[in-house]
Amino acid sequence: MVSGTQQANIGVTGLAVMGRNLARNLARHGYTVAVHNRTGARTRALVEEFGGEGAFVPAGSAAEFVASLERPRRVVVMVKAGAPTDAVVEEFASLLEPGDILVDGGNAHFLDTRRREAALRERGLHFVGAGISGGEEGALHGPSIMPGGSAESWASLRPLLESIAARVDGVPCTTHIGPDGAGHFVKMVHNGIEYADMQLIAESYDLLRNAGGLGPAELAEVFRTWNTGRLDSYLVEITADILAYSDPGTGRPFVDVVLDQAEQKGTGRWTVQTALDLGAPVNGIAEAVFARSTSGHAVLRKAARDLPGPPRTPVADPAGFADKVEQALYASKIVAYAQGFDEIAAGSAEYGWDIDLGATAAIWRGGCIIRAEFLDRIRAAYASDPKTPTLLTTPDFAEALAGAQEAWRDVVATAVRQGIPVPGFAAALAYYDSLRARRLPAALVQAQRDYFGAHTYHRTDKEGTFHTLWAESPRKEVPIGTPPNP
Amino acid sequence: MVSGTQQANIGVTGLAVMGRNLARNLARHGYTVAVHNRTGARTRALVEEFGGEGAFVPAGSAAEFVASLERPRRVVVMVKAGAPTDAVVEEFASLLEPGDILVDGGNAHFLDTRRREAALRERGLHFVGAGISGGEEGALHGPSIMPGGSAESWASLRPLLESIAARVDGVPCTTHIGPDGAGHFVKMVHNGIEYADMQLIAESYDLLRNAGGLGPAELAEVFRTWNTGRLDSYLVEITADILAYSDPGTGRPFVDVVLDQAEQKGTGRWTVQTALDLGAPVNGIAEAVFARSTSGHAVLRKAARDLPGPPRTPVADPAGFADKVEQALYASKIVAYAQGFDEIAAGSAEYGWDIDLGATAAIWRGGCIIRAEFLDRIRAAYASDPKTPTLLTTPDFAEALAGAQEAWRDVVATAVRQGIPVPGFAAALAYYDSLRARRLPAALVQAQRDYFGAHTYHRTDKEGTFHTLWAESPRKEVPIGTPPNP
Repeated sequence: MVSGTQQANIGVTGLAVMGRNLARNLARHGYTVAVHNRTGARTRALVEEFGGEGAFVPAGSAAEFVASLERPRRVVVMVKAGAPTDAVVEEFASLLEPGDILVDGGNAHFLDTRRREAALRERGLHFVGAGISGGEEGALHGPSIMPGGSAESWASLRPLLESIAARVDGVPCTTHIGPDGAGHFVKMVHNGIEYADMQLIAESYDLLRNAGGLGPAELAEVFRTWNTGRLDSYLVEITADILAYSDPGTGRPFVDVVLDQAEQKGTGRWTVQTALDLGAPVNGIAEAVFARSTSGHAVLRKAARDLPGPPRTPVADPAGFADKVEQALYASKIVAYAQGFDEIAAGSAEYGWDIDLGATAAIWRGGCIIRAEFLDRIRAAYASDPKTPTLLTTPDFAEALAGAQEAWRDVVATAVRQGIPVPGFAAALAYYDSLRARRLPAALVQAQRDYFGAHTYHRTDKEGTFHTLWAESPRKEVPIGTPPNP
Repeated sequence: MVSGTQQANIGVTGLAVMGRNLARNLARHGYTVAVHNRTGARTRALVEEFGGEGAFVPAGSAAEFVASLERPRRVVVMVKAGAPTDAVVEEFASLLEPGDILVDGGNAHFLDTRRREAALRERGLHFVGAGISGGEEGALHGPSIMPGGSAESWASLRPLLESIAARVDGVPCTTHIGPDGAGHFVKMVHNGIEYADMQLIAESYDLLRNAGGLGPAELAEVFRTWNTGRLDSYLVEITADILAYSDPGTGRPFVDVVLDQAEQKGTGRWTVQTALDLGAPVNGIAEAVFARSTSGHAVLRKAARDLPGPPRTPVADPAGFADKVEQALYASKIVAYAQGFDEIAAGSAEYGWDIDLGATAAIWRGGCIIRAEFLDRIRAAYASDPKTPTLLTTPDFAEALAGAQEAWRDVVATAVRQGIPVPGFAAALAYYDSLRARRLPAALVQAQRDYFGAHTYHRTDKEGTFHTLWAESPRKEVPIGTPPNP
């Protein structure tokens, strides 16, 4: 249905596939949706093809679009992150009135969102940076939505977002993440975790194929079985589907005809760069990002392919090995998610967002790429202990790690001896062992820093900051400044 | 000697320890050095304490300082990176005249240096971002100096920098790195490599102590021996010295009284963040940065210290194990340096700097923290093959890796089984095995991306970009756009 005079409940501008599907999702849920695009062809195509799904109000100009909206106006911008977003935000901000709400549903960097939110707040407008996960299908059938911004904007948007979001056990996969950039920050870390999860699945596949000696069809079965257990997740499900698929043209396993160079669009990189600024150690996510860029360096790989490796002998018991890999995958996955939530906690503290970590896990249970039963375990872990400094020590996960750690070590040692790269598994295990360590060799590093750069050190046996005069004879320790806790 | 009327050859402003020592180094080499500090006390102290070392021209004001310099004026700014540098650069730029040279000898971010260089070039001034490595002692006795900027500024500064820099085999440890931010970029990567080198040494120590069962005094001997071989380096030398040292107050090994939380000042972080932007995989450097931040998370470590680990049994043959660790350390070190030089090559290509990698290695042979005989091997590797895509495949290093890889795997597997964290060793080995791999599981990752996000893929058997319509039955492959190489 197309309405010319009816006031629209919400507007969507930018009608590429994500924007179009979001508009359709809103219309299908009974909302009257104003639609607009820089070039009118897309607006007309949407109404022609999908006008029967609900009430659309097509607009030829931005002014017409804005005029068609009920107040306070709700405008969702679905354009490319970066300069296009700035241009469109400015265009619509100048047409809106105090109290109106402008939503950026793209993948903006959270610092850009903070900047835009502050600028629009000055002008009396609500700017909402909303992470939307789930791709094209999710946008149409129910995404996971992570809105930041003011409490007032959330109150206005809430009924609409709750009706179009995915649902798990009847609960919509959306919640108010926090002020200004909080929504885009959380969406960024979601993507970083997604990189790590995919890398760990890829390493499992590689190990089972090259050390386990299993072919793609057998591997599809392995992943299908895993998907009925604690690894039940969208990513494991599609992995089984991909591994079972044969390329129609050649009849070969599809995974074997795909060039082994993984690409990336930037949110994984941002997750690691931001973690570095926050001092949050996310080595599992970092290894996943680096693994993608390493795979893409064709010249480097070609030059290095004849570097020597060990002889490769298939493991004696492939089924038993597959069971161990399942344990290594589950343990490494716990670490990757723990690191991601650690980064969210660090960001929340840094920017004063007061993010509810359990609620964040809950809205990732459906609609998004990392959706899984696993996220409900994380929700439950935070529900039982909201102040836990790490997911690793919550009872459910601590028990799983205790049960898995022996197999995990076995799998990493096997990979290392057979010359199969497992950067993700190895990084996760190193993180686990670093946190367990009673003493880390960081003491030696700090001593070196004091030796060559007078960077000082703390002591295990007394308060204060100290420097040793290394060049003097005899050497002498001097206290620096005053103790931090006098 | 203090000269009131003589024209100074060069001026140094900012007389904290680095600036003071650099000024003294210049004066000791026969240059007349104008000295200035925001607060006059430091200027007076320098002249009082060290006036006998050479010709200083103390200046009470910035104008007086600038007036005392011969033309074209050469002013070295030694203040904190960030806002203080901007303030001082602007203050002096307004006093200088076209053709004059302003040198920033601090640890600026190379993007700030690019911005400042462009702004000053507009005003006819030469801005030189110069990385200076070697700490206080280096600044006084001979640092490694990495200047960026115009060829003209290099011609003017060259004789002075060459006379105060460290020397190896009679060759000064300074060269013109390239335009604008090139010098600070290279200094940043130097520091990133330094992080990795220190982490690898720390892991070696940890392994030999906890799996090898050796005490600090025995370990001092091990490192002292290593320092007579291919690992000969300043960092290994001071490690031996630190491990041999007992805390005078308690009589305990010094390394045991230092709190095991390593700190950082930012250049390691910048190296990783920049590598992510450049698509340069530097996982060895990243693990070193994360290892420091992990060590500093006291609350997290306290919570996780009782997570279960494996039983720990000392290795049967500590001396044999030490030999294997030496090989693992050497192999991992080759990887860390290869990654750093890879990042420099990527930065050089991105910003059009045309950096000579061999010359960069040559000026790190002396004066800086990573100084070592090893850098001469890198210089030689680039001399024999300037276009090599990676140091790993140059004959000298390829041979070393071939000889070490079995022991390297042994050491990582041992660490993993004994629960000793070796993030640096493991990351380096994963990188090595990734580059060697005929096929990487990145193919599965890219297939997943196409499945859930229509991100397309390339094929191994034909040119072009493709997308599979996963939701259709039967599935169909569609070509996207035109092949990249028609």
